[in-house]
Amino acid sequence: MVSDVLDELISALPDGTVVTDPDILESYRHDRAADPSAGTPMAVVRPRRTEEVQAVLRWASTHCVAVVPRGMGTGLSGGATALNGGIVLSTEKMRDISVDPVTRTAVAQPGLLNAEVKKAVAEYGLWYPPDPSSYEICSIGGNVATNAGGLCCVKYGVTTDYVLGMQVVLADGTAVRLGGPRLKDVAGLSLTKLFVGSEGTLGIVTEVTLKLLPAQHGACTVVATFDSVEAAANAVVTITGKIRPSMLEFMDAAAINAVEDKLRMGLDRDAAAMMVAASDDRGPSGARDAEYMAEVFTEHGAKEVFSTSDPEEGEAFVAARRFAIPAVEARGSLLLEDVGVPLPALAELVAGVEKIAANHNLMISVIAHAGDGNTHPLIVFDPSDAEMEQRAQQAFGEIMDLAIGLGGTITGEHGVGRLKRPWLAGQLGPEVMELNRRIKTALDPDGILNPGAAI
Amino acid sequence: MVSDVLDELISALPDGTVVTDPDILESYRHDRAADPSAGTPMAVVRPRRTEEVQAVLRWASTHCVAVVPRGMGTGLSGGATALNGGIVLSTEKMRDISVDPVTRTAVAQPGLLNAEVKKAVAEYGLWYPPDPSSYEICSIGGNVATNAGGLCCVKYGVTTDYVLGMQVVLADGTAVRLGGPRLKDVAGLSLTKLFVGSEGTLGIVTEVTLKLLPAQHGACTVVATFDSVEAAANAVVTITGKIRPSMLEFMDAAAINAVEDKLRMGLDRDAAAMMVAASDDRGPSGARDAEYMAEVFTEHGAKEVFSTSDPEEGEAFVAARRFAIPAVEARGSLLLEDVGVPLPALAELVAGVEKIAANHNLMISVIAHAGDGNTHPLIVFDPSDAEMEQRAQQAFGEIMDLAIGLGGTITGEHGVGRLKRPWLAGQLGPEVMELNRRIKTALDPDGILNPGAAI
Repeated sequence: MVSDVLDELISALPDGTVVTDPDILESYRHDRAADPSAGTPMAVVRPRRTEEVQAVLRWASTHCVAVVPRGMGTGLSGGATALNGGIVLSTEKMRDISVDPVTRTAVAQPGLLNAEVKKAVAEYGLWYPPDPSSYEICSIGGNVATNAGGLCCVKYGVTTDYVLGMQVVLADGTAVRLGGPRLKDVAGLSLTKLFVGSEGTLGIVTEVTLKLLPAQHGACTVVATFDSVEAAANAVVTITGKIRPSMLEFMDAAAINAVEDKLRMGLDRDAAAMMVAASDDRGPSGARDAEYMAEVFTEHGAKEVFSTSDPEEGEAFVAARRFAIPAVEARGSLLLEDVGVPLPALAELVAGVEKIAANHNLMISVIAHAGDGNTHPLIVFDPSDAEMEQRAQQAFGEIMDLAIGLGGTITGEHGVGRLKRPWLAGQLGPEVMELNRRIKTALDPDGILNPGAAI
Repeated sequence: MVSDVLDELISALPDGTVVTDPDILESYRHDRAADPSAGTPMAVVRPRRTEEVQAVLRWASTHCVAVVPRGMGTGLSGGATALNGGIVLSTEKMRDISVDPVTRTAVAQPGLLNAEVKKAVAEYGLWYPPDPSSYEICSIGGNVATNAGGLCCVKYGVTTDYVLGMQVVLADGTAVRLGGPRLKDVAGLSLTKLFVGSEGTLGIVTEVTLKLLPAQHGACTVVATFDSVEAAANAVVTITGKIRPSMLEFMDAAAINAVEDKLRMGLDRDAAAMMVAASDDRGPSGARDAEYMAEVFTEHGAKEVFSTSDPEEGEAFVAARRFAIPAVEARGSLLLEDVGVPLPALAELVAGVEKIAANHNLMISVIAHAGDGNTHPLIVFDPSDAEMEQRAQQAFGEIMDLAIGLGGTITGEHGVGRLKRPWLAGQLGPEVMELNRRIKTALDPDGILNPGAAI
């Protein structure tokens, strides 16, 4: 019976689009969240065209098969965890892009890597700003699905700020175009914005129209170390109240040491916190911003402050910050948090995470896009130690409760996925949950799109 | 019967909140679109608190009374046109604001003027960018309802880019909080963004949390006149492909002359087009941008180019541009368009409007936020001449058809309201219309919120 149903799909699509090889299925069960509750899909489907995605969804809605959309599988919240009896719809083969320098837009298919989009538009002297740390391995489709952020967002905003339009295939297989290469357009509800960040629960995005900026200017970078996390957090608040840095990143002692273990670049292992800040304002303005940030760091008691206008030197520190997650991962398996708070609560959040780590006798390293209050506590555990894993899970939940208690969010840029879903109601409350459900039901009445994820 | 129902509302609210004086009702029948099909409401309700808005909507949903939300009544598409037997819910008395310089956010009630928000945050050295030409008379609530734009949007984006959160009262009277003072938050669907631009059809926004920027820097302004509209439009495309001006405004001959009639500032009455451009980049960068724009204007055959780094001198030209609508309005009644196109189609759009004007023997003056392809053709007619008014109506529709044909939008920043609704399906197509309707029905099943507007 299942194979009859699947045969129908196989025959509706070009050869090789539907994969059932058990070894390949295995590799599509998890995204980077490595959700232990992952099922095994009946098939992985890798369409190349919108029409093929439509065929998949027509089939899925006819047979009520759950569809888990997947970009490059770099999600950290289990948004692409496979389900038993469902299919995984991977957009990895949809890789076209066209750049229009005149309208300063690009039309990209979802399977391109973020880095590939950046590279394609750079050939025209243009820039696509959003820059998740994983930009070299994550897809633009996944970025749109999670409304991904990154390091430059403190000045340049997040993915949704760059999505002007999209083509999206709805649950019943209908393909619609929303928005387009128009910088201002208020005709009808803001559906484009609704689909951004919907984690594949409302439709499958098969094409996005992206707003681009002229190429970014070289940045002046300032690195500072501190004896206390609180001093670093206070410096952040002072800076963002006055200027618009293009980066304002934080690493705690554990992250500094994990990175130094790997990169041996001479980071201060005794520091409680390190800030990596930058300004990309042109000419003397950028230098003036850098000088101002250096002054603020010093005023807040920085141990050491280092400034450079050399892009390569600056990039080395940014790369160190980007490398923090893999570096900490070398210490064990990770439960990766993504909690955010209003800026004044940043120090309290980090202090609270330290307390949770101590209570559960766990290593929790905190890195943060500090300038927008978005932190990534990295909970380290040994997966062969079931009791330790349980403590890690406990800490994972407590950190979200802490963020909610501070007026924050359980996820700033990774998405709710499956791992964070039990906490969503705690943040949103029953009425907003109901509002989410009403919209989900209106667009996907049979609930075939990424069931169990996000909402 | 009607009066029994209304008595119930009157007794549920503080004294004076519900107004039934016929003279006052008359003044709430129209917004600035002066929709001739406006009805007379049974009452105007002017609540001061969210709880009162909830009481109004509970009452309205119980009795199935249509609710037309209204800010300051400056809407140009008839979004606040009153309906017979319905009520007008004016947010004009909801005027609180609090500014938090640390998180660089403001929490404002909807009845404040845009200019009042700007002023309140300026006291903290902060800036709320969106700047509709009507900023001195339009409300922030109306701005949110229409996702309003303005002159600086070419660089700084539109209202939605500055709305981090809101409190909104749903059709059944439930009040929910969406988003908040968090710069990144992807927990649940992007409902905040969905409500922005929904023109009062999904709920009544009773409070908005706005993202602020550090104060804007003084701008360098460049003014240029051209012998042809096409040359000016081509210069626009060249400029936006390379730099990010903070303003790039266009006026045609009719607008120049109408403004000159009123202001007598020595504008070139023989020019076919005038551009007012600016860069607010700090220090030498702004001056360099201005120089670049002046060069591009010259290369595209500008008759005259004038640059100034004196803010007051620059502001005089911006004020002239802002004055264009009232100046043209002195020539007769206006049907005010708001069509937008992808930038390369700008010259074709303006040429097409000229042809429509000639065909119908009408004066249509075009002003435009040229940098983002958003134009305002102003159709002038004599309201005492029914035949002329009909020609104006005909032209109004043809301009929207023209924009749709050029891949554009029927409304860039004013909203669909009631005047543009017959053209919405032509732009969106049946599937997207259906998507709009599904969401509307999910949130307002009885259709009491602004029926007949927008969607």
